[in-house]
Amino acid sequence: MNTYGTHFRVTTYGESHGLAVGAIIDGCPSGLRIDFEAIDRDLARRRNGAPRQEEDRVEWISGIKDGTTLGTPIAFSIRNNNVKSEDYDALQHAFRPGQADYTYHTKYGLRDHRGGGRASARETVARVVAGALAKQLLTPISIMAEVDALGPDLENDTRGGIVRCCITGLPAGVGEPLFGKLNAHLAAAMMSIPSAIGFEMGAGFAAALMPGSQYIDRWNQTIKHSNNQPITQTNHCGGIQGGISNGMPVEFRVAFHPVATLPQPVECLTEEGALTSIDVGGRHDRCHVLRAPVVVEAMAAITLADLML
Amino acid sequence: MNTYGTHFRVTTYGESHGLAVGAIIDGCPSGLRIDFEAIDRDLARRRNGAPRQEEDRVEWISGIKDGTTLGTPIAFSIRNNNVKSEDYDALQHAFRPGQADYTYHTKYGLRDHRGGGRASARETVARVVAGALAKQLLTPISIMAEVDALGPDLENDTRGGIVRCCITGLPAGVGEPLFGKLNAHLAAAMMSIPSAIGFEMGAGFAAALMPGSQYIDRWNQTIKHSNNQPITQTNHCGGIQGGISNGMPVEFRVAFHPVATLPQPVECLTEEGALTSIDVGGRHDRCHVLRAPVVVEAMAAITLADLML
Amino acid sequence: MNTYGTHFRVTTYGESHGLAVGAIIDGCPSGLRIDFEAIDRDLARRRNGAPRQEEDRVEWISGIKDGTTLGTPIAFSIRNNNVKSEDYDALQHAFRPGQADYTYHTKYGLRDHRGGGRASARETVARVVAGALAKQLLTPISIMAEVDALGPDLENDTRGGIVRCCITGLPAGVGEPLFGKLNAHLAAAMMSIPSAIGFEMGAGFAAALMPGSQYIDRWNQTIKHSNNQPITQTNHCGGIQGGISNGMPVEFRVAFHPVATLPQPVECLTEEGALTSIDVGGRHDRCHVLRAPVVVEAMAAITLADLML
Amino acid sequence: MNTYGTHFRVTTYGESHGLAVGAIIDGCPSGLRIDFEAIDRDLARRRNGAPRQEEDRVEWISGIKDGTTLGTPIAFSIRNNNVKSEDYDALQHAFRPGQADYTYHTKYGLRDHRGGGRASARETVARVVAGALAKQLLTPISIMAEVDALGPDLENDTRGGIVRCCITGLPAGVGEPLFGKLNAHLAAAMMSIPSAIGFEMGAGFAAALMPGSQYIDRWNQTIKHSNNQPITQTNHCGGIQGGISNGMPVEFRVAFHPVATLPQPVECLTEEGALTSIDVGGRHDRCHVLRAPVVVEAMAAITLADLML
Repeated sequence: MNTYGTHFRVTTYGESHGLAVGAIIDGCPSGLRIDFEAIDRDLARRRNGAPRQEEDRVEWISGIKDGTTLGTPIAFSIRNNNVKSEDYDALQHAFRPGQADYTYHTKYGLRDHRGGGRASARETVARVVAGALAKQLLTPISIMAEVDALGPDLENDTRGGIVRCCITGLPAGVGEPLFGKLNAHLAAAMMSIPSAIGFEMGAGFAAALMPGSQYIDRWNQTIKHSNNQPITQTNHCGGIQGGISNGMPVEFRVAFHPVATLPQPVECLTEEGALTSIDVGGRHDRCHVLRAPVVVEAMAAITLADLML
Repeated sequence: MNTYGTHFRVTTYGESHGLAVGAIIDGCPSGLRIDFEAIDRDLARRRNGAPRQEEDRVEWISGIKDGTTLGTPIAFSIRNNNVKSEDYDALQHAFRPGQADYTYHTKYGLRDHRGGGRASARETVARVVAGALAKQLLTPISIMAEVDALGPDLENDTRGGIVRCCITGLPAGVGEPLFGKLNAHLAAAMMSIPSAIGFEMGAGFAAALMPGSQYIDRWNQTIKHSNNQPITQTNHCGGIQGGISNGMPVEFRVAFHPVATLPQPVECLTEEGALTSIDVGGRHDRCHVLRAPVVVEAMAAITLADLML
Repeated sequence: MNTYGTHFRVTTYGESHGLAVGAIIDGCPSGLRIDFEAIDRDLARRRNGAPRQEEDRVEWISGIKDGTTLGTPIAFSIRNNNVKSEDYDALQHAFRPGQADYTYHTKYGLRDHRGGGRASARETVARVVAGALAKQLLTPISIMAEVDALGPDLENDTRGGIVRCCITGLPAGVGEPLFGKLNAHLAAAMMSIPSAIGFEMGAGFAAALMPGSQYIDRWNQTIKHSNNQPITQTNHCGGIQGGISNGMPVEFRVAFHPVATLPQPVECLTEEGALTSIDVGGRHDRCHVLRAPVVVEAMAAITLADLML
Repeated sequence: MNTYGTHFRVTTYGESHGLAVGAIIDGCPSGLRIDFEAIDRDLARRRNGAPRQEEDRVEWISGIKDGTTLGTPIAFSIRNNNVKSEDYDALQHAFRPGQADYTYHTKYGLRDHRGGGRASARETVARVVAGALAKQLLTPISIMAEVDALGPDLENDTRGGIVRCCITGLPAGVGEPLFGKLNAHLAAAMMSIPSAIGFEMGAGFAAALMPGSQYIDRWNQTIKHSNNQPITQTNHCGGIQGGISNGMPVEFRVAFHPVATLPQPVECLTEEGALTSIDVGGRHDRCHVLRAPVVVEAMAAITLADLML
């Protein structure tokens, strides 16, 4: 299904090589004055270094009048201008390694059906627009992501990396104790981003190997938040206790595996089961992680808007 | 909310210090012959080394007749016998560090309401029963979790650790491309387990730092699965491509932070904002990770049953 | 699926001829002081004239402490004491006319699976308990249903009838404009009651044949509700405009077809396709409509609790 | 919320006086060859006699390639060309009788927010497109609705009426026994149509007053459906038993109240609580029931597509 969220719901549509991509945002309250330039800035961050440069002009179809939300569903559309479908002809009957070619073929029979254009990172443009709007709704909560680590920069190869995200200004009390834990929602949101392969809150995997006396975030007696919330000396838990935000910054990291489309010939599996070397070419990123922070922010913002409405 | 799943739905109930805990499983098909001993074995694994030893006798209330599922909702109940509520008297007006005391108090006002007994790991007993039943439904798919690493074993301290899970026999094609990725579902399921603080598929965070040419799982030309599915030389992706299982084993790891209740006095925060040293006592695990694998298996099984029905 | 509601969620379980019936109520706020006698009174209304007289003793398993809700899931159970399964032996391979025998057989293969005990009106006992609790949550809103019309009282036959329900004290503003109209929710709730065959708001089918100038509910200039809401001279719309309550009483009627199990032999269809006369016997109502008002109230209360939380 | 359905999900957007209306259809399988002329024919039926004549040209944005569905979300858009907003200026601070003016004002504060354009029957154009597509998906099931009765045709007044719908070719087994009864789904779908005020299956309210011996649909021994399903001598139940289709035609009726906007001055309530006579004018139907059958068909088709996927 192509919908994310329960109260602030984003339903995306559009194939990478089709007419347009876009979404309907349902559940956005009325009266929000939209900062369209901020949305464009996030779209520019998403294009950062991408070989396929799109104009990414957003057409707002419904739900906004005179720059202000009406409370009705917000539909928007972004035309695809820069499409070179012929790049993919060589792959019509072969499965690349490390890609979703084989899984889509197995699930849907025809790769173009559901997969194809939808699997492409092009779909994230709709998430970025919805996320940028969600960020404005969440003001003054701040959501900032940045590249934390990158894989090696080698000739003729691709890179992965790790993105760190920090949410400040989130009040204590967001999230639910059982299946609706804030960290569970964030984990699902982040793992839904193409190439995401790992997620950790606060000290994460390192925390698992600390002694408890080192791990626990002890109270800080003297210093408090401006809003009188208590603060802790460390933030190993990443701002969430028992699934619920505790008022400290919510901090997490997302690992992205390297781009699977290598800039070199790779052995592909034909439908008949043979291996054949193909040079995929196409206009693929060598390091998509540079473009990932704004997508991480978008999914975090949509998740929080959904939980806080 | 206390329901997990869409088609195979588990709704748990019961406070740690109340009459009973249990669940309703809705959506289980009719005609499944239940192996009750296998369920008891999983319950015994969950009690592994726990200071609070319960009998964990499951009363099956509905949905099963002559040992076989009817297709109607399966309700079950497990009485709480071994309750020592007085252990907690000292904590009525103080927030322990590293615990959900403060977040529950902030969210619900009264800590006992929603929090209290529900936050306790006691609730996982219902997940284990539902998961054991889901595993039987998924036969011949195998779900096996085990402790992969433990924190240091120190005098007077607690330990965390990492659990590794491997699912074999899962056919290619499970999961959806966008928000319903199999890895996103598994991440949310695992992060909903108490103390979980990190999740990674396959090579996970290490994959983020590999060059792409090392990361991608290349096709293995000569060897195939018995069911004629192609296999790969490595499994860095953890058996999922583009959110959909590829027929290789699904492998993931879950990091658990150390038990936050230390076997030593800790500085607690009073409701008035002062710090006070309290020796929590109680019958708490020093290393709950030993009991976690069966809970990881249960949540994985419930997740797969939900996606495959 | 056996769950009703989104925010105030009732999941029922139990077969008519099994150990017990009951439900989990998820989403009930904490701090509600339960009037257990009021619940028992509603259960007595539901037993009104029923040939199968049950004790209907509710065992409260979780979610309530010292008579007050905790905010955690409320699980309850009602044992079945008065079961005579042998009454049904003659029907094992024949489909009664006017019953769900054939549809369940077609859908589930085996009639006992899902159907059997679940289809029985016995299941409504769980709805009545959940509804009685929802009514207390909705105080001071009042929900009152009564028999409005009955079919003829003939020797050796069964009767249907119409139940009228009136909800007073509901504020204006409940319901949503599109698919979540209050009348749409109420219609689905009522049609989910066994034997319901028609639903109308306010003047209903008669309104369809009125001229518009007669139909529209004109404003009453001089009289107002105590809470300063405007009132109308008539209430043909049944208190809902555009899917949203307008502050006038919400009024609707539900038609129930006669009990399909006649107290006389009927031609049943065998699995082989032949007709055979069977005297079903069993302890069936001749006029279940007498017991329906409290079920109508229960479903209305659960629906409102769900929409207003 | 603006989404209808679980597996075949329709999310509509667009204000009556905005740029466009449309929807995303999510869950439509791949490989369906679209008959665009059939969709246009249904749109023409919806315009039947309407004072506001739109061109209703559908722009297909995604999910369809070369006239065939891809399995990805189908987004479409229909521009609003014929908008005369100034007609409504007189109503900015007054509530018409029999309309949703007051309820929207109470719920949303500002009438244009959520209400306004969304409440208009203009929104049903998106339902008709989605329904026309659902009908094609359901082939060879046939869904036919027609006007069954009309209110009196008086000078200077408006009319309501009753629409009858008959679904043939639906196999036995569609629907669920408890809350997911087919009749409950249909009731909610129909009551979500603007002006719907009553719903009945088969003999409906008349059935409530029949003796049981007359009501029950007796088996017909000698005649069978071509597909060997048994048939009944009558169809008082409307083709549904116990919430599940029985293979007979599914028959139901929907009552629509008269258009509430009269072609004569009416007393409106000002925000200050006074009454004032206003001649609403505008281009309103005097008898919208003539346009309702295709909307009834659309909602029935979407409901069935959702239940049968």
